[in-house]
Amino acid sequence: MKKVSVLGVGKTKYGVLKDKTLLDLAVEAGKKAMDDAGITPEEIDAFYLGNYAGSDFINQNHLAPYVGAALGLRGNVSCTHIENACASGGSAIREGILAISAGAASRVLVIGVEKMNTVPTPKVTEFLAKAGDWEREVKVGYTFPSAFAMMARRHMHQYGTTREHLAAVAVKNHGNGLRNPDAHMQKPLTMDQVLDDTRIIADPLRLYDCSLITDGASAVVLGEKSLAKGFYKRPVEIIGFGQANDCFALYQKEDLTRFDSTIEAARMAFTMAGINPEDVDVVEVHDCFTIAEIMAIEDLGFVPKGEGGPATLDGVTSLSGKFAVNPSGGLKAKGHPVGATGVDQVVEITLQLRGEARERQVKGAETGLTHNIGGSGATCVVHILARG
Amino acid sequence: MKKVSVLGVGKTKYGVLKDKTLLDLAVEAGKKAMDDAGITPEEIDAFYLGNYAGSDFINQNHLAPYVGAALGLRGNVSCTHIENACASGGSAIREGILAISAGAASRVLVIGVEKMNTVPTPKVTEFLAKAGDWEREVKVGYTFPSAFAMMARRHMHQYGTTREHLAAVAVKNHGNGLRNPDAHMQKPLTMDQVLDDTRIIADPLRLYDCSLITDGASAVVLGEKSLAKGFYKRPVEIIGFGQANDCFALYQKEDLTRFDSTIEAARMAFTMAGINPEDVDVVEVHDCFTIAEIMAIEDLGFVPKGEGGPATLDGVTSLSGKFAVNPSGGLKAKGHPVGATGVDQVVEITLQLRGEARERQVKGAETGLTHNIGGSGATCVVHILARG
Repeated sequence: MKKVSVLGVGKTKYGVLKDKTLLDLAVEAGKKAMDDAGITPEEIDAFYLGNYAGSDFINQNHLAPYVGAALGLRGNVSCTHIENACASGGSAIREGILAISAGAASRVLVIGVEKMNTVPTPKVTEFLAKAGDWEREVKVGYTFPSAFAMMARRHMHQYGTTREHLAAVAVKNHGNGLRNPDAHMQKPLTMDQVLDDTRIIADPLRLYDCSLITDGASAVVLGEKSLAKGFYKRPVEIIGFGQANDCFALYQKEDLTRFDSTIEAARMAFTMAGINPEDVDVVEVHDCFTIAEIMAIEDLGFVPKGEGGPATLDGVTSLSGKFAVNPSGGLKAKGHPVGATGVDQVVEITLQLRGEARERQVKGAETGLTHNIGGSGATCVVHILARG
Repeated sequence: MKKVSVLGVGKTKYGVLKDKTLLDLAVEAGKKAMDDAGITPEEIDAFYLGNYAGSDFINQNHLAPYVGAALGLRGNVSCTHIENACASGGSAIREGILAISAGAASRVLVIGVEKMNTVPTPKVTEFLAKAGDWEREVKVGYTFPSAFAMMARRHMHQYGTTREHLAAVAVKNHGNGLRNPDAHMQKPLTMDQVLDDTRIIADPLRLYDCSLITDGASAVVLGEKSLAKGFYKRPVEIIGFGQANDCFALYQKEDLTRFDSTIEAARMAFTMAGINPEDVDVVEVHDCFTIAEIMAIEDLGFVPKGEGGPATLDGVTSLSGKFAVNPSGGLKAKGHPVGATGVDQVVEITLQLRGEARERQVKGAETGLTHNIGGSGATCVVHILARG
């Protein structure tokens, strides 16, 4: 299998971007990534687009050649749209890696994009719910806040996780987001603010436990590792990856407090990389809700099961902690444009490993990991990146 | 790049299948393909699902793990949904090939499925139109029948193609469909019937020039060629493939009578296979409308530009002709469950090359080609298969 490196990264600002279309966002991120890699559209020979629901949000399907043509990709370029719910971006990165590993492409552009602020919030919730089991869950009232609320309640019951533990995730990630000029949410939070806020979304989750409805796009250029040397003093290699599945519906899960897909995808990625969780300096996890970050750092093997909450409250996952989690602000503060998220995690880890993350730089970061889930964990994609 | 073979194929009956859900169809086809390959779900290590609009037709996204879980795939299996409009199935096959070529999987299940008969026909037309350019075309009245009508009219103008030429495609494909027990349409047509029918859909295209609104699923198991030997006396190898893109909207095309994406994808596939169009015995092309088959056989290099109509009328593309086109009945008579079509083309060519196509068998077929397009040609995927 050929080794694959990140040759360039780019992204738009994340937020409620009323004056930007999906096409504007995707093209901006894609151009920035190609500029960063120092290449032109003519040098790209495969393109993967991660998007969840362009069909719903903007009535547009067949999005890969739609964006590809606008970027000036033309001719012998395969343009393929990947949809794996909130893991669409991570799966798109994976397909890009495979195209290079297979020898079918030497430079691949991957863009993740979602334009969500086109409809009222209840419609957004309905569109997102299509990533759950429509017949067996959504029709009887399932939404993602309710699903993660059940996970949180069960985690509290099994492990003694508290509201303070959840709040610590929000406070940390809002703090990190303040250091990220591209983050959607630029708002400091105190523990008291999170705990005192009375807007219950789905008990025990309250307003500040939830990620955001965000417009945005992120992009990477991938290439054979042998190409990377000419590009940067500090190239970043993808040293391991894994994508796993699990049962689809929440009611089918054996244990609501863990994602087996995360455990398995991490096992695959760590095995390929030949390293252990202790070797990782910086991590971007899928904190669609605060409880999801706690579950993620446990399932990925960074802390023992049940200790995610206390570790977060103790600062273990802060920018200066033992391993930094979500330095970008995560889905919670940076925002969660669904199809973009998995790609942006790779953008952030690349910047961290290059030492270009400015105010949110994790000092001396040499190895990083991304964790992207779809639905209530039916899909998980993990990538491990390293300098060199 | 590792060589890839088709280890097993399976499909449902195609038609208006009121009592089958998308899940029923996908599971049936997937199980049949695994049975045909003689393997169990535990032996599959990657799964690609081609589907166009499950989100619209059945309110279900995140379809790959949804189907994967129902098939008993669980754990270290990547389940990924590919959407490339009407080329979703062809692109899903391609990703399966790449996963094996990259060494990331040794046995891959690919299923294409679409459940379309859930809404009234005008809604179907609206959902399909999302594969065109919604902002710049659909909003001003663009639908796919109108797009292909413009191509037909221009082809008539440039090359003297006639209504009889178009009708010959319909008559041939209905005849082939009568020999395919799984085909949606089991109805013989005469030239007079096609020509006399007065139901204009989009002039010059009439009722019998158009493909069908079909429910169905098709599946293949792909594997390293080295695995194929134990499976069959007559294994089928994928000896070449190509996927190309083009401008997205119809108004951007230089010439309405050709698909540059077909020309380029075919060039890539023939180069990889090291053969020429003359070497191909049997072809499944994307005849969403009769004119599309004529354009396809020209753009693929089987006949000179402008001679697709006369060649069809002369029987060159009949079951016993120089090269057989759409022995399955094609989209026109077999039906066009959008996301399934590109996969089913590979199913049909595999059966033909194995000599298992019964009444529609092309005698002595040793090499076959599939041609799958998305939108008005913004995507084209070509695969070339051969015995051995």
